[in-house]
Amino acid sequence: GVTMAVSVSAADPLPSWKATAAKKAIVDFVDRVATEGSPDFVPVAERIATFDNDGTLWCENPLPFQAIFAADEIERLLPDHPEWESNAAVQALQKRDVAGLSANHHKGLLEILALTHAGMTTDEFDQRVRDWLATAEHPRFNRPFDQCVYQPMLELLTYLRANGFQTWIVSGGGVDFMRVFADDVYGIPPDQVIGSYGQVKFEMKDGKPTLTKTLDTVFIDDKEGKPVGIHTFIGRRPIAAFGNSDGDQAMIQYTTIDNPRPSFGLIVHHTDGEREYAYDANPKSSGKLVTALEAAPGNGWTVVDMKNDWTTVFEAKP
Amino acid sequence: GVTMAVSVSAADPLPSWKATAAKKAIVDFVDRVATEGSPDFVPVAERIATFDNDGTLWCENPLPFQAIFAADEIERLLPDHPEWESNAAVQALQKRDVAGLSANHHKGLLEILALTHAGMTTDEFDQRVRDWLATAEHPRFNRPFDQCVYQPMLELLTYLRANGFQTWIVSGGGVDFMRVFADDVYGIPPDQVIGSYGQVKFEMKDGKPTLTKTLDTVFIDDKEGKPVGIHTFIGRRPIAAFGNSDGDQAMIQYTTIDNPRPSFGLIVHHTDGEREYAYDANPKSSGKLVTALEAAPGNGWTVVDMKNDWTTVFEAKP
Ligand SMILES: [Ca+2]
Ligand SMILES: [Ca+2]
Repeated sequence: GVTMAVSVSAADPLPSWKATAAKKAIVDFVDRVATEGSPDFVPVAERIATFDNDGTLWCENPLPFQAIFAADEIERLLPDHPEWESNAAVQALQKRDVAGLSANHHKGLLEILALTHAGMTTDEFDQRVRDWLATAEHPRFNRPFDQCVYQPMLELLTYLRANGFQTWIVSGGGVDFMRVFADDVYGIPPDQVIGSYGQVKFEMKDGKPTLTKTLDTVFIDDKEGKPVGIHTFIGRRPIAAFGNSDGDQAMIQYTTIDNPRPSFGLIVHHTDGEREYAYDANPKSSGKLVTALEAAPGNGWTVVDMKNDWTTVFEAKP
Repeated sequence: GVTMAVSVSAADPLPSWKATAAKKAIVDFVDRVATEGSPDFVPVAERIATFDNDGTLWCENPLPFQAIFAADEIERLLPDHPEWESNAAVQALQKRDVAGLSANHHKGLLEILALTHAGMTTDEFDQRVRDWLATAEHPRFNRPFDQCVYQPMLELLTYLRANGFQTWIVSGGGVDFMRVFADDVYGIPPDQVIGSYGQVKFEMKDGKPTLTKTLDTVFIDDKEGKPVGIHTFIGRRPIAAFGNSDGDQAMIQYTTIDNPRPSFGLIVHHTDGEREYAYDANPKSSGKLVTALEAAPGNGWTVVDMKNDWTTVFEAKP
């Protein structure tokens, strides 16, 4: 028989991360929890990592992409719905009047959601999202929206999964919207996507089962809703959480404070106006980051400086 | 080098199933969808099987076990709550007056749930369920409730997983209740348990994250709620569904009717009063089976006759 000794020097699993403190913190944590015999070893079943989506895995400017989808859907459907033209919410959306849409407890936004995210079957909605992703382009980066994803975060997802982690999305975005692309784009299957949703309605129609989207009992997976969503869907406490705004603070607190397991929290700080966008206290639309940034040092959360910690922002065009 | 030819004759993976039509239907379906090159081959990611719990995976008599847990909790806590003794719901529960508890849209039952399933943290609740499972015994079978599980169904879960299926629980029972034992008893992790629930409340208390159980925005994972829960939690259509009552009919319809994938539906019919219980149209408490049984032949659903299709009902005592 022949014995072959092979020495493999593993390639860097995070090539788009510069050799700064953020990368070192990630790799140190993963080594601690995934190395058998380590005092901080965590069994595979409990290696759960949760990721915000907008501003953490993909870009959220000039508007959250789901809002752009809704606006594009209104434009597409308007010829068949002349009655919409006098609708104040539709007019505010056409002017990109975010303040107007948000007034009165998001009354306008809910009207837009009712026109674009409810009243159709889940299959019809999925197809509309697929059609939009196949044709729409980001106005600044001139590429499909599902290619405006952060290459360093894609590497991080792959690296964590290679080390036995489950990678979950926990986002304020709509779950039905995200599930259309999460598997292809992030390698995250539908059942590991947690998001906002209205309860669907089941009926037998003409002898066939149908699920219709509604805005009944809406669950908002943001702020304190994120740990609620995590408990409801995962039923276990994560050991790592990744976000970019104050809306992720409760999720990162739940993950890292008083957790009997070793844990890790990370905030993506948008500091790169040249390659992407620079914002925190005063975002263009969503993604306000103030209290979570203040809380980071005292809680040992890692803050990623996009400009200085990442060699690349977006994945290379295919 | 040495080439070793090994001929393995696989042991029967379903030894507690007699060689009847039910077993043949199960094995034929699994072979069709899991055999590469089969015209009905289904990729692993889409091999999703959903199981009702009460009456499908474990016994539901003389009362659903979660109701017995609630009654035992009331007894345990009563010395500290003398004010409960005048409570009509508590009195009905002590008399096992199911009709009284169910009157007025389950008003009494909701009061019992409020006393036993809300107001504590999720960690406290989990510990109460664990303590109960460790001490309480089934009144007829004289074994812990989590050993009153059907051996043929345990074999079926293992067999499906060995063939690349995800096995999910989709039950009217409480999700927090089932998650305590589902992993140990069924090999089903917390994130693959779908059940009824009230939304938990997240708060930082004394600097620590806490989740408190409430009865807010209760989701009932029964009847039409089952396909709703499946869409919400799994986001894909199952290809196999297993139940025992009319409460599972919508789930089995959603799984088997007009599904572009090959699919399989199965109903466990309780025909064995000697080894377990015999009931369908007139159950002792839960588990009414009339319309689903009528619909079975026309839809090609397999009906398991517990008395004649199973060699063993319960797993051997450890
Ligand atoms: Ca975000
Ligand atoms: Ca049942």
